[in-house]
Amino acid sequence: MLEIIFATKNLHKVEELKKIAPKSVEIAGLPEGIAIAPEYGETFLENAIGKAMWYMKIVKKPVVADDSGLEIDALKGFPGVFSSRFMEGEDYKKKMEKILKMLENEENRRARFVCYAVYASPDGIVVSAKGTVEGKISQNIRGSKGFGYDPIFIPDGYEKTFGELGEDIKNSISHRYKAFENLFKMLKNLDIF
Amino acid sequence: MLEIIFATKNLHKVEELKKIAPKSVEIAGLPEGIAIAPEYGETFLENAIGKAMWYMKIVKKPVVADDSGLEIDALKGFPGVFSSRFMEGEDYKKKMEKILKMLENEENRRARFVCYAVYASPDGIVVSAKGTVEGKISQNIRGSKGFGYDPIFIPDGYEKTFGELGEDIKNSISHRYKAFENLFKMLKNLDIF
Repeated sequence: MLEIIFATKNLHKVEELKKIAPKSVEIAGLPEGIAIAPEYGETFLENAIGKAMWYMKIVKKPVVADDSGLEIDALKGFPGVFSSRFMEGEDYKKKMEKILKMLENEENRRARFVCYAVYASPDGIVVSAKGTVEGKISQNIRGSKGFGYDPIFIPDGYEKTFGELGEDIKNSISHRYKAFENLFKMLKNLDIF
Repeated sequence: MLEIIFATKNLHKVEELKKIAPKSVEIAGLPEGIAIAPEYGETFLENAIGKAMWYMKIVKKPVVADDSGLEIDALKGFPGVFSSRFMEGEDYKKKMEKILKMLENEENRRARFVCYAVYASPDGIVVSAKGTVEGKISQNIRGSKGFGYDPIFIPDGYEKTFGELGEDIKNSISHRYKAFENLFKMLKNLDIF
């Protein structure tokens, strides 16, 4: 059984990943008391690699990490890598209100959630994978499920936002789900487990 | 035909990689006038990833990069990631003389060359591979072939240094050869070409 540490303090994300991971892999969260990785990448991929490498060097075990965000076409990809850092300190309700304000009278509401998942192991293997979910920005904040920008994102093929759809549907179509599914497929093809 | 840019200004290394790469891949050097990637990683792997990502973002094509160095057991892995930066500005003759001086009267001359090769493409794939060649540090500087620390490294199974053995043998057993061979195998398993 290969143990992989998921580089997140969010236990909910750890539980979710356990459902995606193959049976031959045991997913665990980060041990207590580890210094948080600095985040200074220019792209999701660099941030995800940075996190995976940072924690791998500390725990000396295989690590997976992810980085993700919302790209809005009419805002030229904003908030993108700044999805968390945008209006830092404010809650997501304030951030979403600001985004909706920026998109007022905007016809083009096309957007996507993007996630990069990265595996890094002490024997020097790094592998990355990408997942995206296309959709559009709603006119209002709707629903209270999920987290982050979920209540203003309507995935293609649905009428409801991720905030309304709930985690079962979200987890079967989301960017994070797809990124880790791709990643585990790649690791399997590489005989890593 | 997949074109891959090898992130090096060393045309000799480009020619060598052409011999290792599968026939379905076309290896090219960096275009002229590109800013050199900064090198601030703590490990070969981080440096190789850093280089691959840096140039990939500039050329917007798939890139391979490598980072390598010499690890000497009696010096606790030194020079390691500092293999180039050690006594920066001095030529390798001076550096090798210094290393031999540090190992004077040292029985344990065990050492290895380590190389990490990394592929990064604009569609968000990063894959790394490692190659090593075990050996020992000679008593004197011997031979003038190869480059870097080659004239003081005797690979296991040989009596001569890399500086004496010449590139045909070196290229069939070297850390760089093995790292790229592993990398191309991995990329093939991932259907990247």
